[in-house]
Amino acid sequence: MANKPNIPKGTRDFSPLEMIKRNYIFNTIKDVYKLYGFQQIETPAMESLQTLMGKYGDEGDKLLFKILNSGDYLKKVSDDELLQRNPLKLAPQLCEKGLRYDLTVPFARYVVMHREELQMPFKRYQIQPVWRADRPQKGRYREFYQCDADVVGSDSLLNEVELVQIMDTVFTKFGIRVQIKINNRKILTGIAEVIGEAEKIIDITVAIDKLDKIGIDNVNKELKENGISDEAITKLQPIIALKGSNEDKLNTLQEVLSTSEIGLKGIEETRYILNKLSSVDIQNEIELDLTLARGLNYYTGAIFEVKALDVAIGSITGGGRYDNLTGIFGMPGISGVGISFGADRIYDVLNTLDLYPRESVEQTQVLFINFGEEEVSYCLPIATQLRNNGVFTEVFPENTKMKKQMNYANAKQIPFVVIAGENEIKEGKLTLKNMVTGEQSLLTKEELIAQFQ
Amino acid sequence: MANKPNIPKGTRDFSPLEMIKRNYIFNTIKDVYKLYGFQQIETPAMESLQTLMGKYGDEGDKLLFKILNSGDYLKKVSDDELLQRNPLKLAPQLCEKGLRYDLTVPFARYVVMHREELQMPFKRYQIQPVWRADRPQKGRYREFYQCDADVVGSDSLLNEVELVQIMDTVFTKFGIRVQIKINNRKILTGIAEVIGEAEKIIDITVAIDKLDKIGIDNVNKELKENGISDEAITKLQPIIALKGSNEDKLNTLQEVLSTSEIGLKGIEETRYILNKLSSVDIQNEIELDLTLARGLNYYTGAIFEVKALDVAIGSITGGGRYDNLTGIFGMPGISGVGISFGADRIYDVLNTLDLYPRESVEQTQVLFINFGEEEVSYCLPIATQLRNNGVFTEVFPENTKMKKQMNYANAKQIPFVVIAGENEIKEGKLTLKNMVTGEQSLLTKEELIAQFQ
Repeated sequence: MANKPNIPKGTRDFSPLEMIKRNYIFNTIKDVYKLYGFQQIETPAMESLQTLMGKYGDEGDKLLFKILNSGDYLKKVSDDELLQRNPLKLAPQLCEKGLRYDLTVPFARYVVMHREELQMPFKRYQIQPVWRADRPQKGRYREFYQCDADVVGSDSLLNEVELVQIMDTVFTKFGIRVQIKINNRKILTGIAEVIGEAEKIIDITVAIDKLDKIGIDNVNKELKENGISDEAITKLQPIIALKGSNEDKLNTLQEVLSTSEIGLKGIEETRYILNKLSSVDIQNEIELDLTLARGLNYYTGAIFEVKALDVAIGSITGGGRYDNLTGIFGMPGISGVGISFGADRIYDVLNTLDLYPRESVEQTQVLFINFGEEEVSYCLPIATQLRNNGVFTEVFPENTKMKKQMNYANAKQIPFVVIAGENEIKEGKLTLKNMVTGEQSLLTKEELIAQFQ
Repeated sequence: MANKPNIPKGTRDFSPLEMIKRNYIFNTIKDVYKLYGFQQIETPAMESLQTLMGKYGDEGDKLLFKILNSGDYLKKVSDDELLQRNPLKLAPQLCEKGLRYDLTVPFARYVVMHREELQMPFKRYQIQPVWRADRPQKGRYREFYQCDADVVGSDSLLNEVELVQIMDTVFTKFGIRVQIKINNRKILTGIAEVIGEAEKIIDITVAIDKLDKIGIDNVNKELKENGISDEAITKLQPIIALKGSNEDKLNTLQEVLSTSEIGLKGIEETRYILNKLSSVDIQNEIELDLTLARGLNYYTGAIFEVKALDVAIGSITGGGRYDNLTGIFGMPGISGVGISFGADRIYDVLNTLDLYPRESVEQTQVLFINFGEEEVSYCLPIATQLRNNGVFTEVFPENTKMKKQMNYANAKQIPFVVIAGENEIKEGKLTLKNMVTGEQSLLTKEELIAQFQ
């Protein structure tokens, strides 16, 4: 009857060692969020499909994990509908609920449902798993954690400034050297306006992004292939060739976009953010990057993305300003700005660069060796005293060979072992062994306890 | 198009205030688990249905949330099968995955899959949500957290001793007065053996449990109605009337069960556990309670349950010894013992008794009032300095009325507000206002920073 167990593809178990590393990541991010006054919320894993459907495009709808209704889930379906065998059409009849796909839509739903209780601006953070029925591949999972912070109910660009400070502080704490890229949707809209190709803005940023790889001629060729007029391509040249400091770039853009009100607004916003940031001691480089166009249909102002400098991996954090997030749930006029740390990629970067702290705060510090009943009775109150003092302490539960117990200590990287056999008990003492240096000392109970204070 | 949003019945959003309370509960439990050398793991929310089905009885199978397969989930189902409309039979064809129902079965699966990496005895804790399609009612949810600790790979009763210590320490830290009930499945088996009614042990414990409410005569009547022989009922009398200290009870049982090997073994185990516990300074009362029969088909040795003394609510923690947990996955011979804290009920008890700590470690400590651009530029580096020193600090993002900003500070219970207007800036100072006492002081930047060190 016994079947060999497995877990669903794209999901993972996390071992104690992995949990220590993951907790280190989550706690570092949490601590910084809290430094800036963000408050934690949690929302249910399951949301009504009505809340989720239509929020992530057609592709997103397909990638939602849907939960079969309890009881007779076929009740409301006719024979005809069944035999049509249309999975997409049938799913909403079989399923009312789905697993959350990100933390943003549930957050918008939360804001709308709890608007009466919320003090605006509402600064929330949320660290929970999300689920996507994506094809699993290296570094892409069907269950993964998102670590989001958003401010809603405030148009102030100080929020953008703070979010950049948060990204900078988090990666400084991790010891990961990063580049923080910044862009503004309004600048992109301005560019599209000026060259009269409003529909083509994504094609344009995609092409510009290839400049380093394929050179200016090929970029221009690609733009032309995408149906962009020669005139527009000519106008685009200073933007494609945009170089120098952020200040230089903004000055160039100011000229090119001089006729676009929205473009100039984007430049002004970016100047404001960069200017304020220059006063607060940012550790990492901030670069204005026009090719940054993530979630273009979603963001309306500043756009952020973080890249690790020493590991070739995609974006490890991103975010931006969006307007009207809650409009889809009947509460218009709420602007928000947020960021999301990619915990799984950060995990990989920390591993690759070997940046995890050497000392774990979660490991057992002392193991009492078990020599039998009498010895255990001698040790138990001392172990209890150590725990009362906050020392992570174990008493080996089995009276097995010393070697096996020592192996256990080594495997769990327990730095100290207490040995109390017949001789020690006779003297009313205990032997404390340092597992790293091998050093042993014979101590009274009080001396032992004092060692760990 | 906008629909009024809702969340699935039986699920909950957790507000910042609720999260602070929940984190307090989880962190307290975690900290004690770690004191005893337990290591954290996490498993995926989704498990193969094969892993979950048949582990919780027929009722449990119905209460599993099943996840519709991605893509064409009807592919393998024939027209005939569809038209039979048998929801139970059809579900495993439409769904390969389900949401975890508890943390024990995923843990057993984990142990089997990772047995090569595990150092035995393996002491793990796990704090994650589980999902059950139960009918929602007061205090019962469809998504709720379990906080489990288990030791596998050790038969030693020292593990039972430690788990009782853990329960005692956790509730002492919470300030909740509890009674820790203990029983042993082997004693119950012994009773059934001695009276020759092996099948009736649950009926017997249920009847005994009613003694206080309905009296001895009605208990005996109920036993008779359940088909228990007069002779057996006569033999049961000393057990029904069991009273006095744990020692008294064990002595009575020792006589009644003198012919049952397994019964005597259960008594010996219980004596061992109680004896060891008497040496380690337990704060709460431990009571041997024969009516404790939770998960009888599951537990094989000690059984634990914790009841709050000052709030009428069911069991708030439970656990016990089980053998062969991993046998269902083809890995026999692994014994384990574990406990599970009921976070939601503990939450209610702490609320009812108003036992949450007054000081939250997660609240913003300082809010800088926003008087406009120049003032913000003056404040930003100082706010940054405070954050660098670990002080939770906010700068109000909008230049709105002072009153609104003060309301924000009050609503978030921020204890200090910094006011730096034209006058303060002229003097190179800041006004620090204590929001509790109303006291104000004019400080230099250095003095302000020193205040929070």
